[in-house]
Amino acid sequence: MQGVKFLGFDVFGTVVDWRSSVARELAPFLQHYGLGHLHPATVADEWRGLYQPSMETIRRGDRTWVRLTELNRESLEEVLRRHRLDPRGIAEQELTDLNRAWERLDPWPDSVAGLTRLKRRFAIGTISNGNIALMLWLAKFGGLPWDVIAGAEVTKTYKPQPETYLGSAALLGLRPEEVALVAAHNDDLLAAQACGLKTVFIPRPSEHGPGQTEDLRPEGEWDVVADDLTDLADRLGC
Amino acid sequence: MQGVKFLGFDVFGTVVDWRSSVARELAPFLQHYGLGHLHPATVADEWRGLYQPSMETIRRGDRTWVRLTELNRESLEEVLRRHRLDPRGIAEQELTDLNRAWERLDPWPDSVAGLTRLKRRFAIGTISNGNIALMLWLAKFGGLPWDVIAGAEVTKTYKPQPETYLGSAALLGLRPEEVALVAAHNDDLLAAQACGLKTVFIPRPSEHGPGQTEDLRPEGEWDVVADDLTDLADRLGC
Repeated sequence: MQGVKFLGFDVFGTVVDWRSSVARELAPFLQHYGLGHLHPATVADEWRGLYQPSMETIRRGDRTWVRLTELNRESLEEVLRRHRLDPRGIAEQELTDLNRAWERLDPWPDSVAGLTRLKRRFAIGTISNGNIALMLWLAKFGGLPWDVIAGAEVTKTYKPQPETYLGSAALLGLRPEEVALVAAHNDDLLAAQACGLKTVFIPRPSEHGPGQTEDLRPEGEWDVVADDLTDLADRLGC
Repeated sequence: MQGVKFLGFDVFGTVVDWRSSVARELAPFLQHYGLGHLHPATVADEWRGLYQPSMETIRRGDRTWVRLTELNRESLEEVLRRHRLDPRGIAEQELTDLNRAWERLDPWPDSVAGLTRLKRRFAIGTISNGNIALMLWLAKFGGLPWDVIAGAEVTKTYKPQPETYLGSAALLGLRPEEVALVAAHNDDLLAAQACGLKTVFIPRPSEHGPGQTEDLRPEGEWDVVADDLTDLADRLGC
């Protein structure tokens, strides 16, 4: 990690626990609309399941770049329709507020303490697919002490497109090897490494709930592997 | 200030003391290149004097948008030429480092304490003409606790163009009246007010040195006038 000046973090899953937080936000909504028999975490999984497909048309160039908040909203409506709930029958304000569940995600217990320590020695920020407003309000909700918000919106691309990583480094006036991506997802790290970034793997074995089978361990030659963000601060001498 | 969710700060002059900091960085350089008879603060004023003209061609649309760091570099070379020093005779690394003087500006004595308090109740960030890298490294140098960096680079415009203010608000998912510009410059506030933003004036009577005649007092109907950023935190109950 010699020469690294900026730690860029994947956020959903790596820094915050989206699944249980979105489930918490969904629960009263589902109850109210007669879907109380559904498990909120399952609906959260369905919503998140549309995340990658929703970005794929943009990555392929079939659609011009739009913010993740907009993609999340479209995915929410799709999930509701699958459960035979017509979003056109729900007040706009209620859908907007439910979609903002993604701004109210709890940090993992080690995240704020770890980031606060890492920030002493490195510049820290997001290299996330989340747009700037989403990242800002999420940080205010959870107390995430970012120095800067980079990633999808400033590059108008979505990870794992190379430009999301390379454009974030360039935006900060840094060479790729001066940036390390910190992520709980091996595929994200593989794409960053191919761009010349340094890589840090943090396992988040309950991101997808008790039955998680993916990303339980490092699957590449990552520069650092740490148990969590406070352990990473220990390892980097912060 | 009812309904304001984001305080967007002008930075050069309002949050940091560019003049004495740039003078400090210039002093050894001038000495080394036989210009020790020049007063470093006067050369800092000359450099800063090219700031508005350098942006003007971009505002007029005669030049595509480039980062302030690039404009500052061009202005530095112009100032050196005026003093019969050919920048082509100076090592690239030395010019780059001198230009990065703008990333090493001291905050005013109240800035960090005031911002830290204001951040508890509001999201805070930059609405500056400084580019993202410049704002990031300046924040790391001085300990400025921004939540987000907005302004020129994210809107590809330069203040006082309306889009710098309106685009910054939109980027954060806010209406103009949910954003307040905090600035030591009446013209900046006038432009923001015309866009529907709230306005906060902070006098910085020594920004331009002992002979300053401009912006000593509020010259418009600003929503709040405070002595400095800790006084602003007092007035806003932070």
